[in-house]
Amino acid sequence: MSKKILVLPGDGIGPEITAEAVKILNACREAGLDAELEEALVGGAGYDAEGHPLPESTLAKAKAADAILLGAVGGPKWDTLEDLSRRPEKGLLGLRKHLNLFGNLRPALLYPQLAEASTLKPEVVSGLDIMIVRELTGGIYFGQPRGIEERDGERVGFNTYVYSESEIERIGRVAFEMAQKRGKKLCSVDKANVLEVTILWREVMNRLAPEYPDVELSHMYVDNAAMQLVRAPKQFDVVVTGNMFGDILSDAAAMLTGSIGMLPSASLNEHQQGMYEPCHGSAPDIACQGLANPLATILSVAMMLRYSLGEPALAERIERAVGSVLDQGLRTADIAYPGTRQVSTSEMGDAVLAAF
Amino acid sequence: MSKKILVLPGDGIGPEITAEAVKILNACREAGLDAELEEALVGGAGYDAEGHPLPESTLAKAKAADAILLGAVGGPKWDTLEDLSRRPEKGLLGLRKHLNLFGNLRPALLYPQLAEASTLKPEVVSGLDIMIVRELTGGIYFGQPRGIEERDGERVGFNTYVYSESEIERIGRVAFEMAQKRGKKLCSVDKANVLEVTILWREVMNRLAPEYPDVELSHMYVDNAAMQLVRAPKQFDVVVTGNMFGDILSDAAAMLTGSIGMLPSASLNEHQQGMYEPCHGSAPDIACQGLANPLATILSVAMMLRYSLGEPALAERIERAVGSVLDQGLRTADIAYPGTRQVSTSEMGDAVLAAF
Ligand SMILES: CC(C)[C@H](C(=O)O)[C@@H](O)C(=O)O
Ligand SMILES: CC(C)[C@H](C(=O)O)[C@@H](O)C(=O)O
Repeated sequence: MSKKILVLPGDGIGPEITAEAVKILNACREAGLDAELEEALVGGAGYDAEGHPLPESTLAKAKAADAILLGAVGGPKWDTLEDLSRRPEKGLLGLRKHLNLFGNLRPALLYPQLAEASTLKPEVVSGLDIMIVRELTGGIYFGQPRGIEERDGERVGFNTYVYSESEIERIGRVAFEMAQKRGKKLCSVDKANVLEVTILWREVMNRLAPEYPDVELSHMYVDNAAMQLVRAPKQFDVVVTGNMFGDILSDAAAMLTGSIGMLPSASLNEHQQGMYEPCHGSAPDIACQGLANPLATILSVAMMLRYSLGEPALAERIERAVGSVLDQGLRTADIAYPGTRQVSTSEMGDAVLAAF
Repeated sequence: MSKKILVLPGDGIGPEITAEAVKILNACREAGLDAELEEALVGGAGYDAEGHPLPESTLAKAKAADAILLGAVGGPKWDTLEDLSRRPEKGLLGLRKHLNLFGNLRPALLYPQLAEASTLKPEVVSGLDIMIVRELTGGIYFGQPRGIEERDGERVGFNTYVYSESEIERIGRVAFEMAQKRGKKLCSVDKANVLEVTILWREVMNRLAPEYPDVELSHMYVDNAAMQLVRAPKQFDVVVTGNMFGDILSDAAAMLTGSIGMLPSASLNEHQQGMYEPCHGSAPDIACQGLANPLATILSVAMMLRYSLGEPALAERIERAVGSVLDQGLRTADIAYPGTRQVSTSEMGDAVLAAF
């Protein structure tokens, strides 16, 4: 049966980068992928058209899809919306929650061709290959109670950081299995010296460990993890952590590579249904100028083929094609430096297509 | 009237490094500082001796002191204590809370003599001088309710991230005033696109801004801040944020300098009563071997003289003495590299004393 892929371009550079990724998806279809593509609105685009960042029709299509390709959401245009529930980000958070996409995979991989781009010394980051597994549908992002209210004559803001054993266990299993497929090292990040919720987190990780005897489990406090990412990032293989710490650490890890425009991500539920998106944001300041790097989105298609569509061979073909355009010296503005050839967003997409 | 200084050596390398700092404090007394020194137990040392990481007698002395010098607390010996309220960290958290030390100043300063030590490229970090102002007695560290309990047949862990307007305002004022004394730029870090408590945070910072017209206020999401610290740390002057984000970001910022063994910190209340401690931890693995770097603790004494004892001239003398031993090429193990002369903890302390 034909697979359903939903494309959600979103805001800012979203439409440009997803357009390039769709070229590759179409090439995959020509190469035998049995899939139908559909498009819908999300984020600021959804709000502008239908008054909501996650329109009903978009959510229905998302639920029916095997996989979703998302560009990016958000921009200054909507930052002043009083009603937080209408902000573009809520479109993204709503998709994660409604589709139960609890397992967020964020690789931080240094492309040897782009080693120069890192702000870190080459010996510190050469060969860097970390996989951050972030819990995506729980923790403080979704915990109740939350809000701003009057107490003792002044306003007080509050959020709740909460995890149940079963929530911790299912993300733990994703991480242990990922470690088994990789370097067999798993580092769980918490703040168990201060926060009870992460004491439970650590306990559940320890309880799972004997079921994965080939994986070496360690624990690290989040402040130390932030430090170690800067000091010696190659000590990490797979890192597992909650929603908030994962948000912070995965961005820091991505930036170690110096080319966040290259990094894809996957968000999966228990049925391998997934949403795929670049790690970078909507970069409204460079939208519509052909400056955006489409490679993270194209590499997100490769993750989609691998994790949701059961087409690892096509995934590898895409990854090899990206390697080949880098070898050719082609670069979008964000990763260009003297001696390379700067190309536009669509020229980059076409080059990947030609190398596919 | 004579000032009271309480010295809390703590655990691990704490006793060695505070011993060197006390040498300098005594030199300051000879140079005219009218102060009495007293010592007490805290952390694991407090637990071992009196069954509690913050013994009553220590707390009483702390309350009576004008300033406290703390080494470091914690170690594997106490990590397995079932009762979280007896862990060494609770001694530290208890002091912060009981003395109302809400204003935590954490400089990340790159010493030109140690530029090599950074894992970042020299052009990215040379001249780095950031001051992180972290709220230290509120937020998720102290929020209620908190705990682990049974709900619907499984255990659930939870903590509460909470700030009131007045708590935000008082740390905001500390940060704005710090920015006025420095480069006049203040970046407030939050996650206002997701967390209500930080929407209130942002609102209060914006409300204060007109009172400090010479300070340029900006806002940044915490994930982006973690990224920007790696990408272009010199864009920051003063950063203000809550307890948890401050814990993470200040450690990342400190590590950018490559020499966390050099970085002091101050924690102040509304009466300029303060606790001063190095940014690094208790490093139990290198304790009692003369390997620890006492400079962060010695520089914490300089902060104490400046912020709590009203002796800026003596503070400067200490800072100049530290610069001078670095110029002489003396290095403890953590910052030694070929061409420098490695010295022990006490040799380093003596060298600072000689240069004072
Ligand atoms: C846009 C925002 C809500 C989102 C998050 O915090 O999860 C983003 O930063 C991310 O990491 O995907
Ligand atoms: C030891 C720990 C409780 C403490 C904290 O998290 O505040 C430490 O990491 C710090 O930053 O001073």
